[in-house]
This record gives sequence, structure tokens and C-alpha cells, in this order.
Amino acid sequence: EMTNCSIFLGYTSNLISSGTRETIKYLVKNNMEHGLILVNLVDCLVTTAGGIEEDFIKCLAPTFLGDFALPGKQLRMGGINRTGNLLVPNDNYCKFEDWIMPILDKMLEEQKQESTIWTPSTMIARLGKEIDNPDSVYYWAYKNNIPVFSPALTDGSIGDMIYFHSYKNPGLILDIAGDVRKMNNQTVYAENTGMIILGGGLVKHHICNANMMRNGANFAVYVNTANEFDGSDAGARPDEAVSWGKIKMDATPVKIYGEASMVFPLLVAETFARTFKREE
Amino acid sequence: EMTNCSIFLGYTSNLISSGTRETIKYLVKNNMEHGLILVNLVDCLVTTAGGIEEDFIKCLAPTFLGDFALPGKQLRMGGINRTGNLLVPNDNYCKFEDWIMPILDKMLEEQKQESTIWTPSTMIARLGKEIDNPDSVYYWAYKNNIPVFSPALTDGSIGDMIYFHSYKNPGLILDIAGDVRKMNNQTVYAENTGMIILGGGLVKHHICNANMMRNGANFAVYVNTANEFDGSDAGARPDEAVSWGKIKMDATPVKIYGEASMVFPLLVAETFARTFKREE
Amino acid sequence: EMTNCSIFLGYTSNLISSGTRETIKYLVKNNMEHGLILVNLVDCLVTTAGGIEEDFIKCLAPTFLGDFALPGKQLRMGGINRTGNLLVPNDNYCKFEDWIMPILDKMLEEQKQESTIWTPSTMIARLGKEIDNPDSVYYWAYKNNIPVFSPALTDGSIGDMIYFHSYKNPGLILDIAGDVRKMNNQTVYAENTGMIILGGGLVKHHICNANMMRNGANFAVYVNTANEFDGSDAGARPDEAVSWGKIKMDATPVKIYGEASMVFPLLVAETFARTFKREE
Amino acid sequence: EMTNCSIFLGYTSNLISSGTRETIKYLVKNNMEHGLILVNLVDCLVTTAGGIEEDFIKCLAPTFLGDFALPGKQLRMGGINRTGNLLVPNDNYCKFEDWIMPILDKMLEEQKQESTIWTPSTMIARLGKEIDNPDSVYYWAYKNNIPVFSPALTDGSIGDMIYFHSYKNPGLILDIAGDVRKMNNQTVYAENTGMIILGGGLVKHHICNANMMRNGANFAVYVNTANEFDGSDAGARPDEAVSWGKIKMDATPVKIYGEASMVFPLLVAETFARTFKREE
Repeated sequence: EMTNCSIFLGYTSNLISSGTRETIKYLVKNNMEHGLILVNLVDCLVTTAGGIEEDFIKCLAPTFLGDFALPGKQLRMGGINRTGNLLVPNDNYCKFEDWIMPILDKMLEEQKQESTIWTPSTMIARLGKEIDNPDSVYYWAYKNNIPVFSPALTDGSIGDMIYFHSYKNPGLILDIAGDVRKMNNQTVYAENTGMIILGGGLVKHHICNANMMRNGANFAVYVNTANEFDGSDAGARPDEAVSWGKIKMDATPVKIYGEASMVFPLLVAETFARTFKREE
Repeated sequence: EMTNCSIFLGYTSNLISSGTRETIKYLVKNNMEHGLILVNLVDCLVTTAGGIEEDFIKCLAPTFLGDFALPGKQLRMGGINRTGNLLVPNDNYCKFEDWIMPILDKMLEEQKQESTIWTPSTMIARLGKEIDNPDSVYYWAYKNNIPVFSPALTDGSIGDMIYFHSYKNPGLILDIAGDVRKMNNQTVYAENTGMIILGGGLVKHHICNANMMRNGANFAVYVNTANEFDGSDAGARPDEAVSWGKIKMDATPVKIYGEASMVFPLLVAETFARTFKREE
Repeated sequence: EMTNCSIFLGYTSNLISSGTRETIKYLVKNNMEHGLILVNLVDCLVTTAGGIEEDFIKCLAPTFLGDFALPGKQLRMGGINRTGNLLVPNDNYCKFEDWIMPILDKMLEEQKQESTIWTPSTMIARLGKEIDNPDSVYYWAYKNNIPVFSPALTDGSIGDMIYFHSYKNPGLILDIAGDVRKMNNQTVYAENTGMIILGGGLVKHHICNANMMRNGANFAVYVNTANEFDGSDAGARPDEAVSWGKIKMDATPVKIYGEASMVFPLLVAETFARTFKREE
Repeated sequence: EMTNCSIFLGYTSNLISSGTRETIKYLVKNNMEHGLILVNLVDCLVTTAGGIEEDFIKCLAPTFLGDFALPGKQLRMGGINRTGNLLVPNDNYCKFEDWIMPILDKMLEEQKQESTIWTPSTMIARLGKEIDNPDSVYYWAYKNNIPVFSPALTDGSIGDMIYFHSYKNPGLILDIAGDVRKMNNQTVYAENTGMIILGGGLVKHHICNANMMRNGANFAVYVNTANEFDGSDAGARPDEAVSWGKIKMDATPVKIYGEASMVFPLLVAETFARTFKREE
């Protein structure tokens, strides 16, 4: 049955670093028929800074498969950064710098000349437009008008670039107050909402908190490896969110204790992509 | 021996919700002799929105001890929010609203009249000044000029208040670009740095990323319950940070796999507070 | 390519309580062509007491799907035992008692009259013969001459029955010395060995220890949720087993960090059962 | 207040490999006044094979502190076995063999001549007598008549020795049926019982199962790092045991999610050893 439900999809940055990026891109790129019109499969994305920049960097240079046990000192001396069992050469970040610096210049110019107040979500949409590459999650988010929220967008390579840029060409402002209004409104004005949250930390709390503004999401699926005993929000079961009004009292939320790069493709294959056929 | 080391202390919000707040306050309030002068025990704090607002809310009304298994629906109907095994009544957030709204008005006025560009760290310092209560961690951070960074400060009750305020009295801007410059500079200009990071997610990554700007922290202690197999930054061992230049190659970093509200007081008791004597 | 490899499959009791029992049964029941003959898919099973008795009990009465959060006191008053999210009524254990007691009588008689020294593996084979039910894993193990080792076979309902039986009809001996000889010999005389170990504790250590007798298994797959930081054997990575000679130095063992009832059916589907066709 | 409570202490083998052995020995060696008599601090021990043999081996040669990351291949070539971050040279096991083989000979002789039916608990008591060394946990268990149950005693180096011995001098029987009667009776005839269980797997289930025979322990403390989501008994919360009648419905059991070598010494220091004074 059709529920007219806005889907909020959250994921931590490692899922963009890994091959789960392609599953996320499937959801952002494709749409489905809803009566006579086509609608997006997901309606809002929330991720951390790495979840943004690594998508763009993968358009500029590849990430390599390594091993969790590769020694940090040797990697450092070889100019290789490790993310779990994945390897990203320093040079990738140089390419990213070359690509983003002129964009930061243009953003600052628009701020000065058109009084634009940039927020993380408007900056991400701009980057999605500029990358102009169908491999990018945020290219498709831009094309399909799916907002992407990342309130701590400075916590990663984008932040490094903003830092360097502040010395070369100072003055850029990145406002998070505008984005919290925009994101909360998206839950408040939705008929129904569903939350799909891969991992913990900011991406989990931010989607839940926004849904509290509407007295709770109607549907919720958590996929993560965290446990509740340490009292972290990361490990909190959905029932904790019910107490806050982040999930409705009559919802039937689910927490899957598992590693998202394995679980999420299976979930999508049996739901959003059930009718998908590989092109011949 | 004296190392002239700037300490970056990060912690997730649950540690402020729990009694670990008092251990953190001890470190922010007290100082030590360094030659002829007194210096702070810790030099920089990083936390998430809940790690800020729950400190102030505890100055306005108490948090109660509950149980991880209390049913969410009953709590919701009783107006009680659960954070792990802790309970916070809705009324506490009403008191927080009454307290913070006039401050947001004043901040907006200063923005308009004095062209102040507020950032999370300057807002937190202002809140620490306004609370004027020695029970507050951020009162002491304000008094002792210890910066507190929280780039996603809108992800919690403060964000809710900024959202409501944007309808009553629109226009407040909260800039995160200024803070990343300020925080990165604090690592770059330090003689030595040490990282003490309780929990994962944003607080862990943000301190590590800032220390990459100086080619690595000299000392590092992680305390968390996360594991590396899912590739999250939360669970990454210190050796992953060595590959990035977030920790120096010749450092001897430590990860303690344990629950911070138990581990951290023991750590502080045997280090910073070794000479502490309970007042008679 | 054909490796002429003896497969040692270990699993904790919860996997028999859950639907993974059917995947295990598939491996025990079926065989494959090896040249001109049919050979077993797996060659040795190791599990704990619950992993034995719950298989037989399921032949006598069903297990029900419940929930991890059902309150113990209410269940206790209703005569319902919880195993994770599964429910087993007390009555199932009464049926088990009725079934096994006459078998224990016969075993004791054979001990007295024929000087049989029963071991856990010979007792399990006897129970597999007696149950005479194609739903049972151990019926097929008996039929296909696959030994099943469970050195702590008294640690569960079978132990309770042996305890009660020791008052009704005393004297039964259950010898574990004979089984360790039998199991170690199975590794020593194998051309190659592979270990598939679901979960930790006794089942993991016992298979690894037996393979040390042959200076290491050639292949190893661990599936569990345990971590190494507490120093338990359950969480030890395969590389720890290499130091002991439990896994060969030139092997390429794998540990999958995940919940076996989800992971194992996928593994079997893509390996042993790749050519399996559902009957029309 | 005095509860006249029999304490069942269970622990996995890694705790004997680590320094927690000394805390356990404290509990087994010392006693307390109960009215006019001295009584043991703990009344029953349950552990796995490694938890037995490593105690004796430490009396013969030392264990060394290493690191979790030491490569297995190098250790193997150097004849060093790794247990977590601890190292045990192969030579220690040779010394163990030299020590235990003559004892196995004597045990077999007594079996033949005196019709002794050896069980794990009687074998462990005999080994405790033979080691005659106050550093040993099981020396003190022997001296203080504290039974030690380990139904899978063949799952480790003792099993290897029994295996080798079965070729040199065949016929030794190790009966587990006798021990389950002895252990269950110890719970059934106790006025009250308390369970202290460090780690999961066999040691946890065995103590709980025995206490089911008396309709539940009166007190229970679990210390482990396992979680319930995989349905393992290791991760089961005390409330699951209530459903089985392993813990009484009116008990107030506790599970501590933490690493036992850190948690247990703190627990003992604040309870059993509260009045302990270091000798001058």
C-alpha cells in the first residue's frame, strides 16, 4: 500500500568510503511511480563531512582495498591514509583541493555580492552541481532536489579546505541555523515519515531529533553495531526514541545489529530494488 | 616531567548526562602550577550538542536515575525522556527554553548592531557566562578561557530553540567556518598536544582531524566501546590515525575498550587528580 | 578444484534453537560427488549440550518466536523459557524426559552387560538413531557416520536427565577421554582440514585445539560477534590461532564479525548449496 | 547481614592466563568468620580446561606480557603461543607434560586397582594436591575442599596429554556424569546461593543450569562483554535466566558490561577484600 511517506536516510562516512555508496546512489538517483507522477525513493539525506567529501573524491581518484592490519607508520611514510580496510592516497586530497578551492572562491563572491548565506545543505547542493558526474551521490541529490544535511560539514577535508581558504581569501560563512530550520520543516510538513539510519552518532541523533518536531516518525529502521550499555545515543534502541517522541508510540521500529555494508544492500534488494533488473 | 602539552578533551553527550560531568568539571575548573604561573588542566573541549545543553539543563532542574528497560510508551505518556538509564522530564526542557530564548534575542541583537558573527564556540562561552553557576562545566570553561567546539550545535535542544526562535525573531546566523579556523590554529600553534577522547563519532574525528593540521598529536588516549570491523571512525584504533598524520608516528597511543563513565574517573584519579584531597 | 578436505563444523547451541538448524541439517544430510563416490559435505560436528538436546526437543514439540524483551518473571510464571527471542515451554522438556529416560536405562544396561564405555559422541549417535526423524540434525549425522563431539554434554537438559537418572538407576558413566582421542585422530589422519566455526567458547576452542594436533588447519572461517580486547578465546582473531599451530602459517583464514543466523545461510547458499534447486 | 550463601564463581580461562588469577586465588585461599567458625569465601569454582592447566603451568614457568598485534607467523616460528596480549612459550607445555604424565599414570593405576572413577573435579583436586604450591588457585581449592567443575576438561592441554597418554598407557576414563550429580547437589542442598560469573560460554551456562535444579540462585552478578542480540547464552541478560528458574524471580541480579580483568579486582576490593590489609 502507498503511505505517502518521506524517507530520511542517514549514514556515517565509512559507508560512502565503502561500496555501500553505490547502494545509496541507487536510492538517490532512481524514482518510483506514485499515482501519475514520479517521486523520489528517499527524500532527505543526513551524513557527516566524510560522507560528503569522499563521494566527490571518488569522482577524482580511486579508493583502494587494503586491510585493517596494515601498519600506520608505513602507510604514513608512503602517503596512504587508511579508513578501515580501505586506502586513500594523499594525492586524492590534493586533487580535491584543486577542485574545491575555485568553488569556495565563487561561493565567497556570491556571499559578498548577492548576500547569500551559505549553509551545509546549500553548499552540498552546489558541490553536487559542480561535480557534474553521474557516479556521485550528491550529483543525483542535486538533480532530484533531495536536501542533504551535514551540520558539522567542517569536520573533515572540507573543513581543512575552508581553513586554508580562510587565509587565502577570508570571510566565508557557513551557517547551521538555516539548515536546522529547513530540516525540521521537512519533517513537520510531511504526511508520514520513515527513518533509515545506518550507523550512530550525529547522523542517528539528527534525524531522530528532527522527527521529534513532528511528534515522531511513523517508521524506523536502525542498522548499527553499537550497544546501549554505555548510554550513548549510538547504541540506544528505538524504544528510547519513543520516550522522546522521536518515534511514534504506535510505530513498530526495528534495530538490526549488524554491519551496514553487508545488511543494507540486502535490505534495499528486497524492498526499494525488488523490481530492479540488471541491464543486459 | 613537564611537557608543555595542550590537552584536547572530547566526550559524547551521554557523559554530561551521567555523573562523568563532575569529573569533566573538575578538569575544567582546576588548574596546576607550571613554573611560576597557573595553567589549565585541559586546553580545549569538543562535544556534541547534548554535551552542551544537558550541562545547562542540570543547573535548572535535576536528571533522575532510571533503568535501560523502562518502556518508551509509558515514559512518553508521562512526559519523561530516557537517555540510557537516566530520565529527564519534559519540564526541564521548558525551563531551558525560558532561560535561553532571551539570550538568543540578545545574540541576534548583537549580530545586527555590532556585526557579531556567532560561532558554536562563542555561543557556548556566552551561555557559560550567562548561566553563572559553579555547577556548570561551561561556566568554568568561560571563566578559564577554555574554548569549547561543537560544530553540530544545532543537533539537539539548542537546535530546537534556534528553530523556534527563527519564527519568533528571525535572522540568527551560527557560523561553523570561523570555529574550524580557531580550533585548527589551536593545534598548529601548540608546542605539544595530547588527545583524550571519550566515545566516538564527531568528537573523536574532530579532535583527530584538527591534530592532523599539525602533523599529529604527541599523545593520545581513546576510551570507547566501538570496534573496528565495521570500518567506522568510532571504532578505528589509534594506528589508523597514525596513517593520516593525526597521531605522530613516534607516539605511544592507547585505546581502552571500556565504558567511559567507569574508566574515566579512575584515569583522572590516578593522573590529574592524584594529589587532590577531599575538603574536610 | 578438489582439496580432499575434512570439514569441522562447530556451532553454539543458540544456532540449533534458531532456524540455522535447518542450514546445518542441509550440510549433514546431503553429500557431494567426489570422483566416483559420494562424500559428506561436512565431516565432524562440535557443539555444546544445548546444541544437541534442542535438536531432539524440536522433534517432540515446537519452539516459538518471542521477543528479547519479554519479562522473565511473567515467562517463569507461565512456564515458558526464553532463549534470546525464542520461547520453549517447560512441557517440551517433560516430553524430552519421557523420551530419553528409557534410552538412558538401555545405555546403562549395555554398560553393565557389554562393558560399553559411553562417550558424548557415542551417546549422541545413539540418540540420533533413536529419534529416527529426518527433521533431526543428529539423525542424519548418525545415518551418515558423521561424529558429533560435545565434551560438556552434561551442561544442559541432558545433564539434568543424567542427574535425575542417577537417583532412579545409578551408575551411568560418560567418558570424555575416549572422545578427545577420537576427535584428535580425525584431524591427524586427514589429508587437509577446514574449520567453520559459528560462535565462540568451547566449540571454537575445541576444533582449533584438535587441529593443533596436526600442526594446523588448512582453511578456517570464523563467524562470531566477539572481540579480542578482553583476551577471550571467543574473540581471538585467526592470527592468534596461527601462533599456536592451530591454523597453518600459509593459510588465509577469515573472521566474519556478524550474527551467524544471518551470515551462515548466505555463506552456505553461495558455497555448498550453490547448485541446490528447490524441489517443485 | 549474614546470608549463609554458597557462592559459585565461574570464569573463563583467559582470566587465569591474566593477572586476575591472583584475585581468584585470594578468594579461594582466604576465609571469613561465620559465627564461631571459619568458612570459605567461595564455595564452588567452574572454569574451562585452560582455566585449570594455565594455573599449574604458571607454577612451572612464567607467562609473558606481549601485545594483541604480534604477528602469528613470527610467534609460531619462535615457538611462542599468544593468548590475547599474553605470551606462553612452547617449552612451558613441555614442562607441563613432564609434570602431569606420571600423575596420569598413577591415576590410571588407581582406576585399575581401586576401581576409582575419575571425574574432572576429582582430577583437578588431585592435581591441586600434587602441585603443592601456594601460588596455585587449585592448590588452595584442594586444601580448602572447594570443588572445581570443568566438564570439558579435555578441551586443552590436559586433553592433549590424555590423548598422548592413551597411546603410551591406555585406558584412563574421565567421567562427567558423576560431576553433574555432585555439582547439582551442591546447589540443591545450599540454603542460599549466589553466582559470580566472569565471561560467557560454558562457565556461565553451567553455573546457571545447576542453580535451576534449586529453582534459582538468590544472587547473581555477571561480568562480560557479550551482547544479547545474537541469541547466545553468553550475552543473555540475567532476566533470561529468570524465565528458566536459574535466578529467583525476586532476586536483583546485575550484569556489568565490561572487561573482567579490570572490573573484578575492583568488585573484590570493595566486597570480599574490604578489610584486607597489605602486610607490612
